[in-house]
Amino acid sequence: MADEVKLYGVAGSPFVCRVSIALNLKEIKHEFVVEDLSNKSADLIKYNPVHKKVPVFVHNGNPISESLVIIEYIDETWKGVPILPQDDYEKARARFWAKFIDDKCQPAVFKALGSHGQEQAVAEAHEQLQFLENELKGKKFFGGDSINLVDISAVFIAFWLGAAEEALGIKILAKDKFPKLTEWADNCINCQAVKDCLPPRENIVAFFKGRFGKA
Amino acid sequence: MADEVKLYGVAGSPFVCRVSIALNLKEIKHEFVVEDLSNKSADLIKYNPVHKKVPVFVHNGNPISESLVIIEYIDETWKGVPILPQDDYEKARARFWAKFIDDKCQPAVFKALGSHGQEQAVAEAHEQLQFLENELKGKKFFGGDSINLVDISAVFIAFWLGAAEEALGIKILAKDKFPKLTEWADNCINCQAVKDCLPPRENIVAFFKGRFGKA
Repeated sequence: MADEVKLYGVAGSPFVCRVSIALNLKEIKHEFVVEDLSNKSADLIKYNPVHKKVPVFVHNGNPISESLVIIEYIDETWKGVPILPQDDYEKARARFWAKFIDDKCQPAVFKALGSHGQEQAVAEAHEQLQFLENELKGKKFFGGDSINLVDISAVFIAFWLGAAEEALGIKILAKDKFPKLTEWADNCINCQAVKDCLPPRENIVAFFKGRFGKA
Repeated sequence: MADEVKLYGVAGSPFVCRVSIALNLKEIKHEFVVEDLSNKSADLIKYNPVHKKVPVFVHNGNPISESLVIIEYIDETWKGVPILPQDDYEKARARFWAKFIDDKCQPAVFKALGSHGQEQAVAEAHEQLQFLENELKGKKFFGGDSINLVDISAVFIAFWLGAAEEALGIKILAKDKFPKLTEWADNCINCQAVKDCLPPRENIVAFFKGRFGKA
Protein backbone atom coordinates (compact mmCIF):
# COMPACT_ATOMS: atom_id res chain seq x y z
CA MET A 1 0.00 0.00 0.00
CA ALA A 2 1.31 3.44 -0.90
CA ASP A 3 2.03 5.87 1.90
CA GLU A 4 -0.68 8.39 2.60
CA VAL A 5 1.04 11.67 3.38
CA LYS A 6 -0.82 14.87 4.22
CA LEU A 7 0.44 18.26 5.28
CA TYR A 8 -2.07 20.60 6.91
CA GLY A 9 -0.91 24.16 6.45
CA VAL A 10 -1.36 27.67 5.17
CA ALA A 11 0.49 29.15 2.21
CA GLY A 12 2.36 31.96 3.94
CA SER A 13 3.68 30.24 7.06
CA PRO A 14 7.46 29.83 7.41
CA PHE A 15 6.86 26.90 9.77
CA VAL A 16 4.76 25.08 7.19
CA CYS A 17 7.31 26.02 4.54
CA ARG A 18 10.00 24.21 6.53
CA VAL A 19 8.06 20.96 6.23
CA SER A 20 7.36 21.56 2.52
CA ILE A 21 11.10 21.96 1.91
CA ALA A 22 11.83 18.70 3.73
CA LEU A 23 9.18 16.88 1.68
CA ASN A 24 10.57 18.44 -1.50
CA LEU A 25 14.14 17.40 -0.67
CA LYS A 26 12.99 13.83 -0.12
CA GLU A 27 10.69 13.94 -3.17
CA ILE A 28 7.74 12.72 -1.11
CA LYS A 29 4.36 12.91 -2.81
CA HIS A 30 1.79 14.41 -0.49
CA GLU A 31 -1.51 16.20 -0.26
CA PHE A 32 -1.37 19.79 1.00
CA VAL A 33 -4.54 20.47 2.99
CA VAL A 34 -5.18 24.21 3.22
CA GLU A 35 -6.35 25.31 6.65
CA ASP A 36 -8.41 28.39 7.43
CA LEU A 37 -6.86 29.63 10.66
CA SER A 38 -9.88 31.82 11.41
CA ASN A 39 -12.06 28.72 11.26
CA LYS A 40 -9.88 25.75 12.11
CA SER A 41 -10.98 22.36 10.77
CA ALA A 42 -12.09 19.50 12.98
CA ASP A 43 -9.11 17.55 11.64
CA LEU A 44 -6.64 20.18 12.81
CA ILE A 45 -8.14 20.25 16.31
CA LYS A 46 -8.18 16.45 16.42
CA TYR A 47 -4.64 16.03 15.13
CA ASN A 48 -3.06 18.83 17.17
CA PRO A 49 -5.23 19.29 20.27
CA VAL A 50 -2.35 20.78 22.26
CA HIS A 51 -1.39 23.70 20.03
CA LYS A 52 -4.19 23.71 17.42
CA LYS A 53 -1.64 25.07 14.96
CA VAL A 54 -0.20 24.27 11.56
CA PRO A 55 1.88 22.55 10.37
CA VAL A 56 0.41 19.16 11.10
CA PHE A 57 1.88 16.22 9.24
CA VAL A 58 -0.14 13.02 8.92
CA HIS A 59 1.54 9.82 7.75
CA ASN A 60 -0.79 6.87 7.23
CA GLY A 61 -3.18 8.38 9.75
CA ASN A 62 -0.51 9.17 12.37
CA PRO A 63 -0.36 12.90 13.15
CA ILE A 64 2.79 14.81 14.14
CA SER A 65 3.02 18.48 15.12
CA GLU A 66 5.92 20.91 15.56
CA SER A 67 7.91 21.63 12.42
CA LEU A 68 11.28 20.48 13.76
CA VAL A 69 9.81 17.24 15.11
CA ILE A 70 8.13 16.63 11.75
CA ILE A 71 11.35 17.20 9.83
CA GLU A 72 13.30 14.77 12.01
CA TYR A 73 10.55 12.20 11.47
CA ILE A 74 10.66 12.72 7.70
CA ASP A 75 14.43 12.40 7.70
CA GLU A 76 14.36 9.18 9.71
CA THR A 77 11.48 7.60 7.80
CA TRP A 78 12.40 8.35 4.19
CA LYS A 79 15.77 7.63 2.62
CA GLY A 80 17.18 9.98 -0.01
CA VAL A 81 18.85 13.34 0.60
CA PRO A 82 19.80 13.46 4.31
CA ILE A 83 18.49 16.48 6.23
CA LEU A 84 20.31 15.96 9.51
CA PRO A 85 24.05 15.25 9.58
CA GLN A 86 25.02 11.59 9.91
CA ASP A 87 27.69 12.21 12.54
CA ASP A 88 26.26 12.20 16.08
CA TYR A 89 28.08 15.33 17.21
CA GLU A 90 27.24 17.29 14.07
CA LYS A 91 23.65 16.14 14.45
CA ALA A 92 23.57 17.51 18.00
CA ARG A 93 25.00 20.80 16.77
CA ALA A 94 22.33 21.03 14.06
CA ARG A 95 19.59 20.41 16.64
CA PHE A 96 21.12 23.05 18.89
CA TRP A 97 21.09 25.71 16.15
CA ALA A 98 17.58 24.82 14.97
CA LYS A 99 16.38 25.22 18.56
CA PHE A 100 18.32 28.47 18.91
CA ILE A 101 16.56 29.85 15.83
CA ASP A 102 13.14 29.00 17.31
CA ASP A 103 13.81 30.00 20.90
CA LYS A 104 16.04 33.03 20.55
CA CYS A 105 16.65 34.31 17.05
CA GLN A 106 13.18 34.41 15.47
CA PRO A 107 11.51 35.91 18.57
CA ALA A 108 14.17 38.65 18.72
CA VAL A 109 13.81 39.40 15.01
CA PHE A 110 10.03 39.41 15.26
CA LYS A 111 10.19 41.79 18.22
CA ALA A 112 12.47 44.12 16.26
CA LEU A 113 10.00 44.08 13.36
CA GLY A 114 7.05 44.64 15.69
CA SER A 115 8.83 47.63 17.21
CA HIS A 116 9.23 49.14 13.69
CA GLY A 117 12.99 49.06 14.10
CA GLN A 118 13.32 50.52 17.59
CA GLU A 119 17.02 50.75 18.42
CA GLN A 120 17.18 48.48 21.47
CA ALA A 121 15.02 45.77 19.86
CA VAL A 122 17.15 45.84 16.71
CA ALA A 123 20.32 45.60 18.80
CA GLU A 124 18.91 42.50 20.51
CA ALA A 125 18.03 40.93 17.16
CA HIS A 126 21.53 41.74 15.89
CA GLU A 127 23.03 40.02 18.92
CA GLN A 128 21.23 36.79 18.04
CA LEU A 129 21.84 37.07 14.28
CA GLN A 130 25.55 37.52 14.99
CA PHE A 131 25.70 33.95 16.33
CA LEU A 132 24.37 32.70 12.99
CA GLU A 133 26.80 34.94 11.10
CA ASN A 134 29.69 33.39 13.06
CA GLU A 135 28.37 29.88 12.52
CA LEU A 136 28.50 30.35 8.73
CA LYS A 137 32.23 31.08 8.70
CA GLY A 138 33.85 29.14 5.85
CA LYS A 139 30.56 27.57 4.78
CA LYS A 140 28.02 28.22 2.02
CA PHE A 141 25.14 26.77 4.01
CA PHE A 142 24.80 25.89 7.68
CA GLY A 143 24.89 22.32 6.37
CA GLY A 144 28.16 22.97 4.50
CA ASP A 145 27.90 22.58 0.72
CA SER A 146 24.18 21.78 0.87
CA ILE A 147 21.26 22.73 3.07
CA ASN A 148 20.42 20.84 6.24
CA LEU A 149 18.03 21.13 9.19
CA VAL A 150 19.50 24.49 10.25
CA ASP A 151 19.11 26.11 6.83
CA ILE A 152 15.53 24.88 6.64
CA SER A 153 14.83 26.17 10.15
CA ALA A 154 16.23 29.57 9.21
CA VAL A 155 14.04 30.03 6.11
CA PHE A 156 12.18 32.83 7.91
CA ILE A 157 15.45 34.77 8.05
CA ALA A 158 16.33 33.92 4.45
CA PHE A 159 12.99 34.96 2.94
CA TRP A 160 10.34 36.34 5.29
CA LEU A 161 12.64 38.84 6.99
CA GLY A 162 13.51 40.63 3.73
CA ALA A 163 9.82 40.91 2.84
CA ALA A 164 9.06 42.31 6.29
CA GLU A 165 11.91 44.81 6.00
CA GLU A 166 10.48 45.99 2.68
CA ALA A 167 6.98 46.28 4.15
CA LEU A 168 8.23 48.36 7.07
CA GLY A 169 10.93 50.31 5.28
CA ILE A 170 13.58 49.27 7.79
CA LYS A 171 16.75 47.16 7.61
CA ILE A 172 17.71 44.59 10.21
CA LEU A 173 19.82 42.13 8.23
CA ALA A 174 22.22 44.69 6.77
CA LYS A 175 24.82 43.42 4.31
CA ASP A 176 27.74 45.33 5.81
CA LYS A 177 26.99 43.97 9.28
CA PHE A 178 26.10 40.42 8.23
CA PRO A 179 27.97 39.67 4.98
CA LYS A 180 27.89 35.88 5.41
CA LEU A 181 24.28 35.73 6.51
CA THR A 182 23.02 37.94 3.65
CA GLU A 183 25.00 35.86 1.15
CA TRP A 184 23.57 32.71 2.74
CA ALA A 185 20.02 34.14 2.48
CA ASP A 186 20.51 34.62 -1.28
CA ASN A 187 21.94 31.13 -1.69
CA CYS A 188 19.18 29.63 0.44
CA ILE A 189 16.22 31.13 -1.42
CA ASN A 190 17.87 30.24 -4.73
CA CYS A 191 18.42 26.63 -3.73
CA GLN A 192 15.88 24.77 -5.88
CA ALA A 193 14.41 22.69 -3.04
CA VAL A 194 13.70 25.90 -1.12
CA LYS A 195 12.68 28.06 -4.11
CA ASP A 196 9.97 25.58 -5.09
CA CYS A 197 8.29 26.03 -1.70
CA LEU A 198 8.36 29.79 -1.18
CA PRO A 199 5.15 31.80 -1.44
CA PRO A 200 5.04 34.83 -3.80
CA ARG A 201 7.14 37.55 -2.16
CA GLU A 202 4.53 40.27 -2.75
CA ASN A 203 2.01 38.28 -0.70
CA ILE A 204 4.37 38.25 2.25
CA VAL A 205 5.16 41.94 1.89
CA ALA A 206 1.41 42.65 1.89
CA PHE A 207 0.94 40.41 4.93
CA PHE A 208 3.56 42.28 6.93
CA LYS A 209 2.15 45.66 5.85
CA GLY A 210 -1.16 44.54 7.34
CA ARG A 211 0.39 42.88 10.37
CA PHE A 212 2.52 45.81 11.41
CA GLY A 213 0.06 48.48 10.46
CA LYS A 214 1.76 50.22 7.53
CA ALA A 215 -0.62 50.00 4.58
CA MET B 1 41.59 5.85 24.71
CA ALA B 2 38.78 6.10 27.24
CA ASP B 3 36.04 8.63 26.63
CA GLU B 4 36.42 11.88 28.50
CA VAL B 5 32.95 12.91 29.64
CA LYS B 6 32.23 16.04 31.64
CA LEU B 7 28.98 17.56 32.77
CA TYR B 8 29.04 21.22 33.83
CA GLY B 9 26.16 21.88 36.17
CA VAL B 10 24.76 22.93 39.51
CA ALA B 11 23.29 20.57 42.07
CA GLY B 12 19.72 21.91 42.20
CA SER B 13 18.91 22.36 38.51
CA PRO B 14 16.20 20.16 36.99
CA PHE B 15 17.77 20.70 33.54
CA VAL B 16 21.14 19.42 34.75
CA CYS B 17 19.35 16.59 36.55
CA ARG B 18 17.85 15.46 33.24
CA VAL B 19 21.34 14.90 31.85
CA SER B 20 22.50 13.17 35.03
CA ILE B 21 19.59 10.72 34.75
CA ALA B 22 20.48 9.96 31.13
CA LEU B 23 24.13 9.35 32.09
CA ASN B 24 22.98 7.17 34.98
CA LEU B 25 20.67 5.11 32.77
CA LYS B 26 23.53 4.49 30.34
CA GLU B 27 26.02 3.92 33.19
CA ILE B 28 28.43 6.45 31.72
CA LYS B 29 31.33 7.43 33.95
CA HIS B 30 31.79 11.18 33.97
CA GLU B 31 33.16 14.13 35.87
CA PHE B 32 30.58 16.53 37.30
CA VAL B 33 32.04 20.04 37.17
CA VAL B 34 30.23 22.32 39.62
CA GLU B 35 29.57 25.77 38.24
CA ASP B 36 29.09 28.94 40.27
CA LEU B 37 26.31 30.73 38.38
CA SER B 38 27.09 34.02 40.11
CA ASN B 39 30.63 33.78 38.74
CA LYS B 40 30.52 31.66 35.61
CA SER B 41 33.72 29.87 34.63
CA ALA B 42 35.69 30.64 31.49
CA ASP B 43 34.95 27.07 30.36
CA LEU B 44 31.20 27.60 30.60
CA ILE B 45 31.36 30.82 28.56
CA LYS B 46 33.62 29.14 26.00
CA TYR B 47 31.53 26.00 25.69
CA ASN B 48 28.12 27.70 25.68
CA PRO B 49 28.68 31.23 24.36
CA VAL B 50 25.07 31.51 23.16
CA HIS B 51 23.20 30.84 26.40
CA LYS B 52 26.02 30.80 29.00
CA LYS B 53 23.92 28.31 30.96
CA VAL B 54 24.22 24.84 32.45
CA PRO B 55 23.98 22.03 31.62
CA VAL B 56 26.91 21.81 29.26
CA PHE B 57 28.04 18.34 28.26
CA VAL B 58 31.56 17.85 26.93
CA HIS B 59 32.52 14.60 25.21
CA ASN B 60 36.18 14.26 24.26
CA GLY B 61 36.42 18.05 24.09
CA ASN B 62 33.23 18.54 22.07
CA PRO B 63 30.68 20.70 23.92
CA ILE B 64 26.88 20.37 23.62
CA SER B 65 24.26 22.58 25.28
CA GLU B 66 20.50 22.28 25.78
CA SER B 67 19.41 19.36 27.94
CA LEU B 68 17.17 17.70 25.34
CA VAL B 69 19.86 17.95 22.66
CA ILE B 70 22.40 16.47 25.07
CA ILE B 71 20.12 13.55 25.96
CA GLU B 72 19.50 12.69 22.31
CA TYR B 73 23.27 12.78 21.74
CA ILE B 74 23.88 10.48 24.70
CA ASP B 75 21.20 8.09 23.50
CA GLU B 76 22.64 7.95 19.99
CA THR B 77 26.27 7.68 21.07
CA TRP B 78 26.10 5.12 23.87
CA LYS B 79 24.39 1.74 23.62
CA GLY B 80 22.62 0.28 26.64
CA VAL B 81 19.20 1.25 27.97
CA PRO B 82 17.42 3.17 25.16
CA ILE B 83 16.10 6.61 26.13
CA LEU B 84 14.15 7.43 22.99
CA PRO B 85 11.72 4.92 21.47
CA GLN B 86 13.08 2.85 18.59
CA ASP B 87 9.98 3.27 16.42
CA ASP B 88 10.13 6.45 14.30
CA TYR B 89 6.59 7.56 15.06
CA GLU B 90 6.89 6.92 18.80
CA LYS B 91 10.20 8.77 18.73
CA ALA B 92 8.50 11.78 17.12
CA ARG B 93 5.79 11.66 19.78
CA ALA B 94 8.39 11.58 22.56
CA ARG B 95 10.15 14.59 21.05
CA PHE B 96 6.82 16.40 20.78
CA TRP B 97 5.99 15.87 24.47
CA ALA B 98 9.48 16.78 25.66
CA LYS B 99 9.21 20.01 23.70
CA PHE B 100 5.71 20.60 25.07
CA ILE B 101 7.05 20.27 28.62
CA ASP B 102 9.75 22.87 27.93
CA ASP B 103 7.70 25.29 25.86
CA LYS B 104 4.28 25.15 27.51
CA CYS B 105 4.00 23.10 30.65
CA GLN B 106 6.99 24.17 32.75
CA PRO B 107 6.55 27.89 31.99
CA ALA B 108 2.86 27.68 32.98
CA VAL B 109 3.66 25.81 36.19
CA PHE B 110 6.46 28.23 37.04
CA LYS B 111 4.14 31.18 36.45
CA ALA B 112 1.55 29.62 38.75
CA LEU B 113 4.21 29.18 41.44
CA GLY B 114 5.50 32.72 40.94
CA SER B 115 1.96 34.04 41.34
CA HIS B 116 1.70 32.21 44.71
CA GLY B 117 -1.21 30.20 43.38
CA GLN B 118 -3.26 32.99 41.78
CA GLU B 119 -6.42 31.42 40.36
CA GLN B 120 -6.00 32.27 36.67
CA ALA B 121 -2.33 31.24 36.62
CA VAL B 122 -3.15 27.93 38.31
CA ALA B 123 -5.97 27.32 35.82
CA GLU B 124 -3.50 27.83 32.97
CA ALA B 125 -1.02 25.42 34.55
CA HIS B 126 -3.81 22.88 35.04
CA GLU B 127 -4.74 23.18 31.38
CA GLN B 128 -1.21 22.16 30.36
CA LEU B 129 -0.84 19.46 33.04
CA GLN B 130 -4.12 17.92 31.85
CA PHE B 131 -2.46 17.07 28.52
CA LEU B 132 0.19 15.08 30.42
CA GLU B 133 -2.50 13.44 32.58
CA ASN B 134 -4.28 12.28 29.41
CA GLU B 135 -1.04 11.08 27.83
CA LEU B 136 -0.42 8.75 30.79
CA LYS B 137 -3.68 6.85 30.28
CA GLY B 138 -2.97 3.12 30.60
CA LYS B 139 0.72 3.65 31.22
CA LYS B 140 3.00 3.65 34.27
CA PHE B 141 5.51 5.99 32.67
CA PHE B 142 5.33 8.18 29.57
CA GLY B 143 7.71 5.61 28.14
CA GLY B 144 5.35 2.74 29.04
CA ASP B 145 6.80 0.23 31.51
CA SER B 146 10.04 2.16 31.88
CA ILE B 147 11.11 5.79 31.72
CA ASN B 148 12.03 7.49 28.46
CA LEU B 149 12.88 10.97 27.19
CA VAL B 150 9.49 12.36 28.26
CA ASP B 151 9.73 11.11 31.86
CA ILE B 152 13.23 12.55 32.14
CA SER B 153 12.06 15.86 30.67
CA ALA B 154 9.23 16.00 33.20
CA VAL B 155 11.43 15.49 36.27
CA PHE B 156 10.69 19.07 37.32
CA ILE B 157 7.03 18.12 37.63
CA ALA B 158 7.83 14.84 39.39
CA PHE B 159 10.13 16.32 42.03
CA TRP B 160 10.72 20.08 41.99
CA LEU B 161 7.02 20.99 41.79
CA GLY B 162 6.16 19.18 45.05
CA ALA B 163 9.03 20.92 46.84
CA ALA B 164 7.86 24.28 45.52
CA GLU B 165 4.28 23.56 46.61
CA GLU B 166 5.56 22.78 50.11
CA ALA B 167 7.65 25.96 50.19
CA LEU B 168 4.68 28.09 49.16
CA GLY B 169 1.95 26.22 50.99
CA ILE B 170 -0.12 25.79 47.82
CA LYS B 171 -1.23 22.82 45.72
CA ILE B 172 -1.11 22.77 41.94
CA LEU B 173 -0.71 19.06 41.18
CA ALA B 174 -3.67 17.87 43.24
CA LYS B 175 -4.23 14.11 43.45
CA ASP B 176 -8.00 14.26 42.87
CA LYS B 177 -7.54 16.35 39.72
CA PHE B 178 -4.47 14.52 38.36
CA PRO B 179 -4.59 10.94 39.68
CA LYS B 180 -2.38 9.50 36.92
CA LEU B 181 0.17 12.30 37.01
CA THR B 182 0.57 12.20 40.81
CA GLU B 183 0.97 8.42 40.68
CA TRP B 184 3.50 8.85 37.90
CA ALA B 185 5.41 11.46 39.95
CA ASP B 186 5.75 8.92 42.78
CA ASN B 187 6.87 6.19 40.41
CA CYS B 188 9.27 8.51 38.65
CA ILE B 189 11.12 9.75 41.75
CA ASN B 190 11.28 6.18 43.05
CA CYS B 191 12.75 4.85 39.83
CA GLN B 192 16.37 4.07 40.82
CA ALA B 193 17.95 5.84 37.83
CA VAL B 194 16.07 9.03 38.77
CA LYS B 195 16.35 8.68 42.56
CA ASP B 196 20.16 8.49 42.37
CA CYS B 197 20.25 11.93 40.70
CA LEU B 198 17.83 13.96 42.78
CA PRO B 199 19.13 16.64 45.15
CA PRO B 200 18.03 16.58 48.82
CA ARG B 201 14.39 17.66 48.89
CA GLU B 202 14.92 20.10 51.79
CA ASN B 203 17.47 22.02 49.71
CA ILE B 204 14.92 22.52 46.97
CA VAL B 205 12.20 23.55 49.43
CA ALA B 206 14.64 26.10 50.90
CA PHE B 207 15.53 27.33 47.41
CA PHE B 208 11.88 27.95 46.53
CA LYS B 209 11.23 29.66 49.86
CA GLY B 210 14.00 32.08 48.97
CA ARG B 211 13.02 32.38 45.33
CA PHE B 212 9.39 33.17 45.94
CA GLY B 213 9.92 35.24 49.05
CA LYS B 214 8.33 33.11 51.76
CA ALA B 215 11.01 32.50 54.38
